[in-house]
Amino acid sequence: MCISVDENEALAARLVAMLTEKALTLATAESCTGGLVAKYITDQPGASAVFGTGLVTYANSAKIRLLGVPEDLLAKWGAVSEPVARAMASGARRTGESDIGLGITGVAGPGGGTEEKPLGLVHMAVAFRGGMRHFVMQPQGGYPGRDVVRHKAAACAMRLVLECVDTL
Amino acid sequence: MCISVDENEALAARLVAMLTEKALTLATAESCTGGLVAKYITDQPGASAVFGTGLVTYANSAKIRLLGVPEDLLAKWGAVSEPVARAMASGARRTGESDIGLGITGVAGPGGGTEEKPLGLVHMAVAFRGGMRHFVMQPQGGYPGRDVVRHKAAACAMRLVLECVDTL
Repeated sequence: MCISVDENEALAARLVAMLTEKALTLATAESCTGGLVAKYITDQPGASAVFGTGLVTYANSAKIRLLGVPEDLLAKWGAVSEPVARAMASGARRTGESDIGLGITGVAGPGGGTEEKPLGLVHMAVAFRGGMRHFVMQPQGGYPGRDVVRHKAAACAMRLVLECVDTL
Repeated sequence: MCISVDENEALAARLVAMLTEKALTLATAESCTGGLVAKYITDQPGASAVFGTGLVTYANSAKIRLLGVPEDLLAKWGAVSEPVARAMASGARRTGESDIGLGITGVAGPGGGTEEKPLGLVHMAVAFRGGMRHFVMQPQGGYPGRDVVRHKAAACAMRLVLECVDTL
């Protein structure tokens, strides 16, 4: 597994172009990627027309306070889980007052992996009017390192948003 | 003027180490850098101990809603100004419930430059208990491009936070 920064840049360019074309706005809520998706999107000149708000909710308290993720969801499933990714996506959409909300939460490592939630596991979800999509990135062939996990997760997340935008 | 990604990585490593040593937390509010500072900080394993919340407030409405930047400040001085950078820093500190708040607002370009606020102008401020520091990055020798402005601004901002943390 290797990082392709160029691929991520190309995905961000496509995403901003498609959002612009469809006059849709996106808001992001990132945990393990820590602003990487927002950075890729705002690398693009003109991103401000479609991207107004990004949230880096690294702490659980920030997920609760800024995104409205229910505390009992975090307690029951843990921060890295499908239900929390979905709640983050809904929260991003609501807090960012945007058409589409993206939520990403995962174990970037190198610390924090468990048997149940191994290093490299990343849940992501996209919320939009009338719908929600979830994707889980499973680690394959061992842990590739923090940078690779973060960049791959950003790429997967941008692809997931593109798939959703395509249906709108 | 050139971008040194290595320099930014080194600054982020120093910053996370110093915040950890002093048991201080940081929250960021980024406009023109769009998550780049949050990305550099969270590149560092262990950043979660000192960094819980980052906000990418690209839109003015997000600056008002999420950071409490007064609307009349934006109307009077414009988003790229010392007063707004200061209000963003205070807002980041408050919204992020952190010891230190960083605010960054500038004209990354390539669009949007004016005679009064040229491409490459970036205001940044750091708020902490009992104090505030402001720094303005002036474009020198022509506009170096969006990427360079963003990376240089991220470096300046991390240096400014380091200077403040050093006094705490």
